[in-house]
Amino acid sequence: MKGWYLYMVRLNLSINKDLKESYYIQIYKQIKKQILNTTIKEGDKLPSIRQVAIKLDINQNTVIQSYHLLEEKGFINKISGKGCFVAKISDFKIEQKEIALIESFKYGQKEKNGIDFYNGTPAYEYFPIKQFEQFTKEVISECGGEIFQYQSVQGVDSLREILAEDLERDGIFVTKDRIQITSGTQQALDIIIKLFTKDRKPTVVLSSPTYPNALNIFKDCCNIKDMDIKKDGWDLDEFEKLLKEEKIDFIYEVINYQNPTGVIWSLEKRERLLKLSKEYNFYIIEDDSFSEFYYTDEKPELLKSLDKIGEEKIIYIKTFSKILMPGIGLALMVVPENLLENILLVKYGLDTTTSGLNQKILEKFIKTKELENHLLNIREIFKKKKELMFELLKRIQNLEIMHIPEGGFFIWVKLADCIDGEKFYKECKENGVFLLPGSVFYSDRRDACKIRLSFISPSLKEIIKGIGIIEHLLLLSVIENSKTCGN
Amino acid sequence: MKGWYLYMVRLNLSINKDLKESYYIQIYKQIKKQILNTTIKEGDKLPSIRQVAIKLDINQNTVIQSYHLLEEKGFINKISGKGCFVAKISDFKIEQKEIALIESFKYGQKEKNGIDFYNGTPAYEYFPIKQFEQFTKEVISECGGEIFQYQSVQGVDSLREILAEDLERDGIFVTKDRIQITSGTQQALDIIIKLFTKDRKPTVVLSSPTYPNALNIFKDCCNIKDMDIKKDGWDLDEFEKLLKEEKIDFIYEVINYQNPTGVIWSLEKRERLLKLSKEYNFYIIEDDSFSEFYYTDEKPELLKSLDKIGEEKIIYIKTFSKILMPGIGLALMVVPENLLENILLVKYGLDTTTSGLNQKILEKFIKTKELENHLLNIREIFKKKKELMFELLKRIQNLEIMHIPEGGFFIWVKLADCIDGEKFYKECKENGVFLLPGSVFYSDRRDACKIRLSFISPSLKEIIKGIGIIEHLLLLSVIENSKTCGN
Repeated sequence: MKGWYLYMVRLNLSINKDLKESYYIQIYKQIKKQILNTTIKEGDKLPSIRQVAIKLDINQNTVIQSYHLLEEKGFINKISGKGCFVAKISDFKIEQKEIALIESFKYGQKEKNGIDFYNGTPAYEYFPIKQFEQFTKEVISECGGEIFQYQSVQGVDSLREILAEDLERDGIFVTKDRIQITSGTQQALDIIIKLFTKDRKPTVVLSSPTYPNALNIFKDCCNIKDMDIKKDGWDLDEFEKLLKEEKIDFIYEVINYQNPTGVIWSLEKRERLLKLSKEYNFYIIEDDSFSEFYYTDEKPELLKSLDKIGEEKIIYIKTFSKILMPGIGLALMVVPENLLENILLVKYGLDTTTSGLNQKILEKFIKTKELENHLLNIREIFKKKKELMFELLKRIQNLEIMHIPEGGFFIWVKLADCIDGEKFYKECKENGVFLLPGSVFYSDRRDACKIRLSFISPSLKEIIKGIGIIEHLLLLSVIENSKTCGN
Repeated sequence: MKGWYLYMVRLNLSINKDLKESYYIQIYKQIKKQILNTTIKEGDKLPSIRQVAIKLDINQNTVIQSYHLLEEKGFINKISGKGCFVAKISDFKIEQKEIALIESFKYGQKEKNGIDFYNGTPAYEYFPIKQFEQFTKEVISECGGEIFQYQSVQGVDSLREILAEDLERDGIFVTKDRIQITSGTQQALDIIIKLFTKDRKPTVVLSSPTYPNALNIFKDCCNIKDMDIKKDGWDLDEFEKLLKEEKIDFIYEVINYQNPTGVIWSLEKRERLLKLSKEYNFYIIEDDSFSEFYYTDEKPELLKSLDKIGEEKIIYIKTFSKILMPGIGLALMVVPENLLENILLVKYGLDTTTSGLNQKILEKFIKTKELENHLLNIREIFKKKKELMFELLKRIQNLEIMHIPEGGFFIWVKLADCIDGEKFYKECKENGVFLLPGSVFYSDRRDACKIRLSFISPSLKEIIKGIGIIEHLLLLSVIENSKTCGN
């Protein structure tokens, strides 16, 4: 009983029944304070729950709650069968739990010392942050506090005006009235889903393979149909069969430099797709994430440029997350006239308006040609990286490049001997090379023997080193496979 | 035919059949160029569609499309029966169409020269923009480009840490692991809806009257039930009857300074509500938009502070749009542990992550106590405005203050003689006083004889003037009413 008294003296606990505060919080606060001011120290053992309950004449559950909270906050450690001990001060920063999602999200983040072949956004060393800072200053000085107020639901007028001018160069002839600003591509997709899911579950057709986050967004609220992506788009005879069989509400596709394959749709297929959209009355969501990243002489045409005024079927989305940086949080939609009002209503319900400051900053990036210069610059860098990676990959025996990339960020690769992509992903990860297993691009996780390689983040040296590691690991896998199969 | 030749000479049109570009766009571009370089001038009449079609040997529909586009872009005006004329250069800025929604959204915007009794966010002259600019600079210099990359889905670690500390002062004892950052309250609500609407349409109970945007967000995807809001919360006997009749999935309520009534729930009702949530297994969404705006000695308690660890039923949402500024685009959620992983997944699908820059800026606002100082300052200003408006309203005969406001932004007022709130809103608007008709706060637009007055935007002088106008218009309405009724 000596220890107990000792502790209680040091803990100095009391309950004030007049306070509105719960007893367990009173106890929590008192113990926390004594730990922080080091009245009790690292390694000190706390009295048992029963002891505290008896001493203070309260229910044991109350003390359990206090201890639970102290443990959750990282102030104490419970050691099974031994009791509760004051934690080390430096351990107070409790690390977030490893959650599957976060892990999968980290696919998109550069890991220290690893070679990054998985990043879907340009590495941050290319971000034009000095200009961003300068433009922030200018916008605040020009617009004052008003720019932090809610803005027009459709987007800042002057930005939409300059975007309309820009779109003309890409063959899209609309006024600013037809442009909707959103807080990124994902919000644009969310808005579209909400348009179509008012009364029932709509049916959407996606490429197989496709952008995983589109799968993620559509899977809960839509019926999903897949179409294999060929070297120049879908097999449209096959697609028309599907259209005859069931009502398709909309399709989602990256027409230029499809993710992950890098495919660019042929003009013939584009025209026929558009014709079908009128015949069978469905909308086409054109996600234009990559067409600014062309490594040929000319930017590819946009599907939207074929869309005729008065009979539009294309909802065009262009993000600024890749051509500028994710932190800008902006995308534009060009919307068929009949959908405009409903889209505004949905957007209003989602976040009222998109950041006015960032919209004005983007406007300055466009007006000053800083965005254009930035693009010229990174396009040049990415092109070199792509060429190097492509040359190196071509020489490797145990893989097949599925499509010769002319733009975008990725090379889509088939592994020899049906080597499992997820298994290979793990092996590469263990060897400091980070890529994406092909399975995440399929709604049914099939076609497991593919991988996606991104060439935009690593340096040229890292590309050489990383592809070398991949070659080596592939060879090992092939040898392993032949052993297992007894070949 | 002379005029025709004249025009065509000046228009100088031709079609290049080798170009991939549609004919109508070729024509559009050529005419646009000639207008912009003033080869053809304001008021010039364009040749007829038929004439151009014949001259160029193309389909009339093609020319119609070109003219349609020129008109849409504001380069020409079509005058019925007379033809198409080059527009005035200064008219080229086509004004956005007046859309009902935009109109209704403007409820939230200050109109020039009007007296603003409708604003739901503090007027921008109070925004701490100098600090924002300074913190932007600091964050960019400290974090570099990385802060514009995607961040942790849950929110920036160091921000969540300091928020957890802050929440302790409000009686919410959680670690940062339990805090989810969102891009505003509306996104938090969108996330919650997505949690509950995976398989079926959930049932939500709201106050009547309630925050219109909550109605807007819930109406398409949930079954909505109303509970009348009394002076201290709902009639919980009545609510329990409802709970016995059907499965309620969650309720949404502003517990402190309810919008629009200003009601604050009594402790008894809070405790019983929480008890009911466990008995009948529903979640409570506590939207904490206003509790920092208390004009009494002490901040009111949060419902969430009553929620016991291990048996939590409350999803707590706190926005920084009102206490800092809408442009910051940030809110926090404190989430029951069992929902955390699903919320992360939904958030990931919605926008991957919330602005890292703004999260770090908010962190600095909290750490440097600038947010606290800002709040002290605006609380003082708003308190004075509230007191003045309340005193003035008390003296007016033809209205009834429904609730004596102790905090928040609004006074909820019943008009005498069943004067129609929407009609009265229009009369006030015509006289330069902007308020909100009560009907927008009801799902069924009933209770039409109420209005909501916001006291946070107008100056003290404007309050005196505005309430004077209201008094005068009320008197006129009462006289008008008595005439119509023949009293």
